[in-house]
Amino acid sequence: MKALIPLACLLAGFAPLSSQGVIDASRPEEWRPLVPEDTLYMDAGGNTVVMELAPDLAPRTVSNIRALVREGYFDGLSINRVQDNYVVQWGDPDAEDPAKQRKQGVPPTLSPEFGLPAAGIAFTPIPGPDGFGEPGFVNGFAATRKDGAVWATHCYAALGVGRAEAADSGNGSELYVVIGHAPRHLDRNVTIAGRVISGVEHLSSLKRGTGSLGFYETAAERVPIARIRLGSDVPAAERLDVEIMRTDSASFRSYVDARAHRTRDGWFASDAGFIDLCNVRGPQRARSRP
Amino acid sequence: MKALIPLACLLAGFAPLSSQGVIDASRPEEWRPLVPEDTLYMDAGGNTVVMELAPDLAPRTVSNIRALVREGYFDGLSINRVQDNYVVQWGDPDAEDPAKQRKQGVPPTLSPEFGLPAAGIAFTPIPGPDGFGEPGFVNGFAATRKDGAVWATHCYAALGVGRAEAADSGNGSELYVVIGHAPRHLDRNVTIAGRVISGVEHLSSLKRGTGSLGFYETAAERVPIARIRLGSDVPAAERLDVEIMRTDSASFRSYVDARAHRTRDGWFASDAGFIDLCNVRGPQRARSRP
Repeated sequence: MKALIPLACLLAGFAPLSSQGVIDASRPEEWRPLVPEDTLYMDAGGNTVVMELAPDLAPRTVSNIRALVREGYFDGLSINRVQDNYVVQWGDPDAEDPAKQRKQGVPPTLSPEFGLPAAGIAFTPIPGPDGFGEPGFVNGFAATRKDGAVWATHCYAALGVGRAEAADSGNGSELYVVIGHAPRHLDRNVTIAGRVISGVEHLSSLKRGTGSLGFYETAAERVPIARIRLGSDVPAAERLDVEIMRTDSASFRSYVDARAHRTRDGWFASDAGFIDLCNVRGPQRARSRP
Repeated sequence: MKALIPLACLLAGFAPLSSQGVIDASRPEEWRPLVPEDTLYMDAGGNTVVMELAPDLAPRTVSNIRALVREGYFDGLSINRVQDNYVVQWGDPDAEDPAKQRKQGVPPTLSPEFGLPAAGIAFTPIPGPDGFGEPGFVNGFAATRKDGAVWATHCYAALGVGRAEAADSGNGSELYVVIGHAPRHLDRNVTIAGRVISGVEHLSSLKRGTGSLGFYETAAERVPIARIRLGSDVPAAERLDVEIMRTDSASFRSYVDARAHRTRDGWFASDAGFIDLCNVRGPQRARSRP
């Protein structure tokens, strides 16, 4: 019966929607706002980068990041690493030096959140195949499900938690954003705590570091971080006023289908008939206030 | 029998190699040099970007690009578009204006090379799944095979041929490089003519354009191209002296496997057991002269 509906629609004169058509046809309740308590505003190098935290997928880490942000831990620190086709990373450039490192109000180690039990997670699958597991979304975040676990995926603009050798050495004080092709071999090896919603281009266009792993070789190259604030500490009128298409909505399912069939958008000569997880990039738009 | 060999090796005390271990253990004949006639040197914005052309996958387009480069077509033109997580594009900023556009020594249209018959192509498959087709490599270039055709894939650093609405409107005079997550929905919709071998970071770190599709809004923002030369027109001593691991070699097969099992490299806590086509990024290294 389900398979007959598309045929019936075509016979009735309905064409499948383009990406923009899906957005235009969506209902207001299929969108959600940013939650101020789950949003970070980073002022760095004269620009603002807005990030959304993922408490559903990394509750302990997000809690630590909130505490660090509230205590002003990141204010006056810097972006220290820009590795091409990989990551932009920030934190305390003196973190390795106990005499100079900045004091943190959270414990230095944290049990990692490389994946959560799938049973407790509202996961919306999208069509595969995907060599890394079952692809899908959790409340806006690209995620992968496999062997009873779900983890946030290292797509472009994902916000990750740097760590040293020990799996529990990432407490949220060293953060990075993906600025290249999704490095999914990092999945389940570091905790993903969120994603950039606005301003990723201010990170991805930074001068690449010429040291090992893309670290800047001189202090002068580092990009100063003026401050990072939680959205709830940003005056309401200054907050980014966007809404995100709910990834558990019918319109989102149509959107994924439209992304696999780009000839509906015009210009394209042929459809792949498939879209990979990290290229879905769910819609967001300026919020229309009531 | 084949399946017994890994087991026999393990029992004999051999461990599977890390990515670097594969490179160290490779034989000299598993590497190939760059072919000067198939290499482009672009001097732009004070930096040099070196690209390798793919005559096996786009013979007519590569021939056109060689002719344009030889006539100095690109010299004095500019990079006009930088769209985040997508492409950097260059060519004639006045291309739309018949009165001001630069004269081209090749016809304005060219039959597209969105895919070649698979029968004539030496294709080395790698393990899937891949939602777009069968993943593999053709002489160093990431490629996909499906329905009897093979096409070069839009991975990070791929060199593509811009076109307008008509499929035959891309003749090689407008070129772009991928600077984000692989936009594989563009595969079979534009011709891929090569890839960047060195200096992609000089393109990916350019200021993003704020106009539609990432075009720069003012002429002052454009990045001037001093010249593009074929490697065969660059003095031998000034050529990039790298060698590329042959993608049809046994070591390359081991390298792909090592990329799927990164715990062999240390630091990693768990293996994905899989690597996607665009993350293989085959090895290249400074050439050891005999």
